[in-house]
Amino acid sequence: MNDLHILRIQCPDQSGLIAAITGVIAAHQLNIVVMKEFVEPVSNSFFARFEISGALNIGQVTAELNKALRPGTVIQLHAARKKDIVIMVTKEQHCLSDLLVRYYFGELHANIKGVIGNYDQLAAFTNKFDIPFVYISHEELDKSVFENKLLEALDQFNPEYIVLAKFMRILSAKFVAKYQHRIVNIHHSFLPAFVGAHPYKQAYERGVKLIGATAHFVTNDLDEGPIITQKVINVDHEYSVAGMVQAGHEVEKAVLAEALKLLFEDRVFVTRNRTVVFD
Amino acid sequence: MNDLHILRIQCPDQSGLIAAITGVIAAHQLNIVVMKEFVEPVSNSFFARFEISGALNIGQVTAELNKALRPGTVIQLHAARKKDIVIMVTKEQHCLSDLLVRYYFGELHANIKGVIGNYDQLAAFTNKFDIPFVYISHEELDKSVFENKLLEALDQFNPEYIVLAKFMRILSAKFVAKYQHRIVNIHHSFLPAFVGAHPYKQAYERGVKLIGATAHFVTNDLDEGPIITQKVINVDHEYSVAGMVQAGHEVEKAVLAEALKLLFEDRVFVTRNRTVVFD
Amino acid sequence: MNDLHILRIQCPDQSGLIAAITGVIAAHQLNIVVMKEFVEPVSNSFFARFEISGALNIGQVTAELNKALRPGTVIQLHAARKKDIVIMVTKEQHCLSDLLVRYYFGELHANIKGVIGNYDQLAAFTNKFDIPFVYISHEELDKSVFENKLLEALDQFNPEYIVLAKFMRILSAKFVAKYQHRIVNIHHSFLPAFVGAHPYKQAYERGVKLIGATAHFVTNDLDEGPIITQKVINVDHEYSVAGMVQAGHEVEKAVLAEALKLLFEDRVFVTRNRTVVFD
Amino acid sequence: MNDLHILRIQCPDQSGLIAAITGVIAAHQLNIVVMKEFVEPVSNSFFARFEISGALNIGQVTAELNKALRPGTVIQLHAARKKDIVIMVTKEQHCLSDLLVRYYFGELHANIKGVIGNYDQLAAFTNKFDIPFVYISHEELDKSVFENKLLEALDQFNPEYIVLAKFMRILSAKFVAKYQHRIVNIHHSFLPAFVGAHPYKQAYERGVKLIGATAHFVTNDLDEGPIITQKVINVDHEYSVAGMVQAGHEVEKAVLAEALKLLFEDRVFVTRNRTVVFD
Repeated sequence: MNDLHILRIQCPDQSGLIAAITGVIAAHQLNIVVMKEFVEPVSNSFFARFEISGALNIGQVTAELNKALRPGTVIQLHAARKKDIVIMVTKEQHCLSDLLVRYYFGELHANIKGVIGNYDQLAAFTNKFDIPFVYISHEELDKSVFENKLLEALDQFNPEYIVLAKFMRILSAKFVAKYQHRIVNIHHSFLPAFVGAHPYKQAYERGVKLIGATAHFVTNDLDEGPIITQKVINVDHEYSVAGMVQAGHEVEKAVLAEALKLLFEDRVFVTRNRTVVFD
Repeated sequence: MNDLHILRIQCPDQSGLIAAITGVIAAHQLNIVVMKEFVEPVSNSFFARFEISGALNIGQVTAELNKALRPGTVIQLHAARKKDIVIMVTKEQHCLSDLLVRYYFGELHANIKGVIGNYDQLAAFTNKFDIPFVYISHEELDKSVFENKLLEALDQFNPEYIVLAKFMRILSAKFVAKYQHRIVNIHHSFLPAFVGAHPYKQAYERGVKLIGATAHFVTNDLDEGPIITQKVINVDHEYSVAGMVQAGHEVEKAVLAEALKLLFEDRVFVTRNRTVVFD
Repeated sequence: MNDLHILRIQCPDQSGLIAAITGVIAAHQLNIVVMKEFVEPVSNSFFARFEISGALNIGQVTAELNKALRPGTVIQLHAARKKDIVIMVTKEQHCLSDLLVRYYFGELHANIKGVIGNYDQLAAFTNKFDIPFVYISHEELDKSVFENKLLEALDQFNPEYIVLAKFMRILSAKFVAKYQHRIVNIHHSFLPAFVGAHPYKQAYERGVKLIGATAHFVTNDLDEGPIITQKVINVDHEYSVAGMVQAGHEVEKAVLAEALKLLFEDRVFVTRNRTVVFD
Repeated sequence: MNDLHILRIQCPDQSGLIAAITGVIAAHQLNIVVMKEFVEPVSNSFFARFEISGALNIGQVTAELNKALRPGTVIQLHAARKKDIVIMVTKEQHCLSDLLVRYYFGELHANIKGVIGNYDQLAAFTNKFDIPFVYISHEELDKSVFENKLLEALDQFNPEYIVLAKFMRILSAKFVAKYQHRIVNIHHSFLPAFVGAHPYKQAYERGVKLIGATAHFVTNDLDEGPIITQKVINVDHEYSVAGMVQAGHEVEKAVLAEALKLLFEDRVFVTRNRTVVFD
């Protein structure tokens, strides 16, 4: 697999596009292992993801694709590899522990460079896995001071992606802008139902018969970013709020793990407030 | 099955309640085929549903239960039997046709006394099943005049339940009050997401990864009544709004059929804005 | 949509294949609306399905594809259109009625030319939809005589596909050979569990917690043909055999409808005893 | 919750049973928090589970129940509490790590007294959680010698339940008999499909569209014991055997955790080869 490369293309659709792209690949005697494409008819946008095997010179192939395709085409070509990430948490353990165990056994498609918590409850558990835990309390701090401390810590780790694994502080527009489409959050409801705090309490009071979770990119608007994955489970009248919280944890960690797998394997494109996911 | 009876009890919880109820049943040498009970801890409310076999005098058993239980207890005892219903529709056929076919083959747990439509598109299909279709256009009519015509038609059929099978007019508080907890609607989203019109369009624009449907009792507040059943299916970026509508039809008819089965078998209790469903 | 064409390619994989195919399409100024491809690594087989818009000469494009691709490549190019089918039934109505209603409202992607039953129970219902019902009893007939009568009736209708919608007679190898990969059966279990008769009884006795259904192509080996779709639902100890049968009907008709949609839209390829399905 | 008790009753059904049981409970001024009952019509067996709050003398209440009910009734009454368990593993980590993390954070409803492995791969990870890992290789040992060593180690831990969390050795009838209905296994298929070894390979070759897992009690017959829970996920032609194994891990650990929760909360009854599960 060490000569497996991922090629991602995003541009306005036009006739002959696939022929042009695959022509360049064929000219280099490369083999297309997997190809997925999608044309979004509303915006007439083209998205494609290729897994390519064979020895290749990234600079040269990219240059030829650039020549073969119209100006403005987004071309991303790189070797398939694990991503560097930082996980941010508050007090709840279920998403963090799930990711740490996957990482420990080599199943996360990512290197966890560090964990940052605004409480220190999860420090001991994180350290079991030989991963640094940085404790940055938000208490008695201006939001901007708190965020600057976070950004400093993040800079040390230099992550490609930040995972909010039940991190319960709202991040400012300035913070989010620094990591556009690189911060993933797990929200404990099937958005757009129950935006904001205490979704399970809201769900209980509305008397819904299913609860769920949503993994989405973080944008400036609370719980409004592009959705990557969602899942629900059935509940009934026997579920108290606490019962929903407990059952919800199972969905939350499953949804987050699934979204991160898709993201770290370069399968997710963002277009307006939607995602194109080649699973 | 002709001596199967359904007993439903709803009251504040207290110690000894089940012993008191089942004591009366045992004293009459009746057999409890199925018993389901639930204590809602927030309001300390007790709900129970019994299927009882054996010959019984409804008036006498009810009287004895009344004596054995505290004043204010809701006691409903009746022979298990099909319910009389009317279905109201607009133009979409998928829920209506599903219910008509189930009825035709004896699988609906209900007698369809008639179908009322504010368009006449579905008249011919309904008539295939020898069921009267009443066409009452809302066009050029004041809402109150339109509703009076509906109420008149309903009076003829004297239904125990009204099923809004994609009936797209909003009913007034006055109309709803006449049939409290006896009108069931199918809403084409997993409420409370996407209340109101065009939920699939809203879902497309939000970029959700699941769509669904909700069967609920109709109350004065649009799409806010107690939920009976909900179901979702996965969608992805390949779904247009039209594709979601088509896929959604499958869920809508499944959810409505399931909710009606529960309702017509006397399995649904309403408490505040929630339902207790003994499935 | 009247100039939408479907192109299907099946051949051994080789480098440059997609470039060669899409090169021909691009040379004709045709637009690829949707493209799905898959390389099966075990047998090194390539499968692709294209939806192509634009005016085209089928003979000419096919000839050019033949020239561009290696000998032995399976190339299927035709206008997107509804398929002609015959449905075969015994006594159970749920799959047939589901298909008839979809057909009546233009949602089946197929023209039902006729229904053949080895009992006449479903004749009246079928006739409601103005579709001929042919009653051919198997009783007191040798299997070969019975099958010859079926084949005669089928010849009249000249179907592209035959749908066994709970047809409970086993067809001979000779019969099956005449319609290779053109007969679809719905089996009432999640195959390979509970092959053969009375799967729900078997399921009850084994105490399974889920039951299901399988739509598959019919081959010589009972219930062993390539699977198109499968679905399950949860059951629990409260389900009797009859309760499983009833619940199972819902899955059976859903699975069959889904499989037929995929098949009639030319999305299903068969390879050995497996299917490649571009949904 | 410290005065919460669980009462379980299993006996032939008869009229007046619930009245007799709840009469005893009411006479002690105890409160029934939750009650679930089921009458299995084929064998005419009665099963019930009560959660009872209030101070009670277990011996006295049991004696009164014994007097009130017919001889031969199984009456189990005890305080709600965590169960003592031992987990047995081979090399695969996903089920073990899931259970260890749940235990560590107090969410397992059980005390893990120890882990026994026939390989030592998972020793280091187990020790992170301060739980003893006993390594007993089966290599170069007669089966009976190997099992005697296992039984010795188990005796030290004195578990109420044994969890086979991907333990890949088949246990003898003698071993199983010692822990009747107290050994739970996770099998990596939706039984009865794909009994025995390599179920994912079998699944791939059969071309199924769903794979699953089954948690069941271990009996003398391989993969034939009473099923507690089952779950499946969809797969398609893109799944290799390895992909199925990986996806299957997610289901396996979810199914096992769910089954153990039900078991450790005293919700599971065994009757013939089936289970009654009051969830």
